[in-house]
Amino acid sequence: MKMLEENLNKKVSLLLKDNRTLEGILSGYDDHMNMVLDEVEENSEETTKKIGTVVIRGSNVVRIVPL
Amino acid sequence: MKMLEENLNKKVSLLLKDNRTLEGILSGYDDHMNMVLDEVEENSEETTKKIGTVVIRGSNVVRIVPL
Amino acid sequence: MKMLEENLNKKVSLLLKDNRTLEGILSGYDDHMNMVLDEVEENSEETTKKIGTVVIRGSNVVRIVPL
Amino acid sequence: MKMLEENLNKKVSLLLKDNRTLEGILSGYDDHMNMVLDEVEENSEETTKKIGTVVIRGSNVVRIVPL
Amino acid sequence: MKMLEENLNKKVSLLLKDNRTLEGILSGYDDHMNMVLDEVEENSEETTKKIGTVVIRGSNVVRIVPL
Amino acid sequence: MKMLEENLNKKVSLLLKDNRTLEGILSGYDDHMNMVLDEVEENSEETTKKIGTVVIRGSNVVRIVPL
Amino acid sequence: MKMLEENLNKKVSLLLKDNRTLEGILSGYDDHMNMVLDEVEENSEETTKKIGTVVIRGSNVVRIVPL
Repeated sequence: MKMLEENLNKKVSLLLKDNRTLEGILSGYDDHMNMVLDEVEENSEETTKKIGTVVIRGSNVVRIVPL
Repeated sequence: MKMLEENLNKKVSLLLKDNRTLEGILSGYDDHMNMVLDEVEENSEETTKKIGTVVIRGSNVVRIVPL
Repeated sequence: MKMLEENLNKKVSLLLKDNRTLEGILSGYDDHMNMVLDEVEENSEETTKKIGTVVIRGSNVVRIVPL
Repeated sequence: MKMLEENLNKKVSLLLKDNRTLEGILSGYDDHMNMVLDEVEENSEETTKKIGTVVIRGSNVVRIVPL
Repeated sequence: MKMLEENLNKKVSLLLKDNRTLEGILSGYDDHMNMVLDEVEENSEETTKKIGTVVIRGSNVVRIVPL
Repeated sequence: MKMLEENLNKKVSLLLKDNRTLEGILSGYDDHMNMVLDEVEENSEETTKKIGTVVIRGSNVVRIVPL
Repeated sequence: MKMLEENLNKKVSLLLKDNRTLEGILSGYDDHMNMVLDEVEENSEETTKKIGTVVIRGSNVVRIVPL
C-alpha cells in the first residue's frame, strides 16, 4: 500500500469496523494495512481515552483520514 | 483492477458495506480495491460531512459509480 | 471465471449480498467476479433507480442471471 | 473440486447461505465452487420461481445435493 | 488435511456453522475441508431428514466427529 | 504454527467462535490451526458432553489454553 | 509483522473481536498475528480471570497495546 507512504509520521484518524475512531501519528504499516500508531487517542461515542502506542490489525480498518 | 483506470482523477461515488457513501476524486487504487479519494464528502442518512482525503480499505467497498 | 464470458455485452441481473438487485449490460469482469455494468438500474424493495455505469466488488455478489 | 465432476450435466439442489435453495442442471463449476446452473428453480420459504440460467459465486454455497 | 484420512469411508458427524448436523459416510475431502458424505441424515432441532449424497463447502464446517 | 508444537499430546482447552469450549488431548494440528483433539469434553453454558475425537476447522478457533 | 518485534517479552494488552481483553507477556507471534501470551489475565465486562499461557488465532485480534 504505497497510498499510506506520504502519511508516515503524520497525524491520521483511523475508523475501525467496530465504529471506534483512533487518532495518532502513523509510525508504520504493511501490505495488509496493519498499522502502528503513536500518541493515540481513542474516541467512541462519548468518551476519549489516551492509549499511547497501538498496533492495529489491518482487517479491522475501514478508512484512514490524514489530519 | 483495470476497471478503475478510466475513472482516475474523476469524481466517483463509493458505497461502503456500512451503508455510508463517499463522493470524491479517485486519485489512486490497487488490486484489492484499496482506494484514495480526494475532496471527499461523506453522506450518511441525513448528514453530509467534508473530510478531505481518505484512504479506504478495499474490503469495505460494495461498488463505485462514476459521477 | 470463464463462466461469465458468454454474457459479455449482454444484459444481466446481479443479486448482491445486501439483497439489492442491479440490472445492466455486463461490460467487464475479472477472476474475483469484480464486474462492470453499464446502463444500470438498481432495484431494492419498492424503488427503482437509474445509476449508469457501476463497478461492483466481487465479494458482494451472490449470483448473476442472464436476461 | 473433482468432487463435482460426476454431477456435471445432472440435476442438483444447491443450498445457499441466505437459506435459498436452487435446483437446476449443473453445467459448469470451478475450484472456488463458482457454479453455473441451467433450468433453475429457486425455492424460498413459500415461493417457487423459474429463473433459467444462473452463475453462483462459490462463497455463497453451503452444500450441493445430487437429485 | 491428512487429519481426515483415517476417517475415509467411515461414518462421521459434521457440525456446520448454521448449527445443522449431518451424519454420513465420509467418501471424499480436500485441503479446504470440502467434503463428500454418502447416506446422509440431516439433524436440525427437531427433525431428521435423509438426503443421500452431499457435497459440503469446507468454509461452512465447524468440526467433524468420527462415530 | 510452531506455537502449538509443545502442546502436542497434552491437554488443552479450546475456545471456539460460537462460544463453546472443548477440552481434550491435542493430537494434531496444521498451519491453518485445524486441530485434532482426543478424549474431548464439550462445555457449553450448563452442559458437559463427552464426544471422543474431534477434528476442528481452524477458522472457528479463538484461542487455545494449555491445561 | 515486524511491528510486534519490539514488544517481545514485554507486557501487552490485546483487544479481541468479541470485546474481551487479554493482558500478558508477548512470548511469540507470526505473520498472521497469531500470538502466544504468558501470564495472561482476561478482562471482560466485570470479571478478571487468570488463565496462564494462551495461544490466540490472529484473525480474532483487533489491536495490541504495549503496557
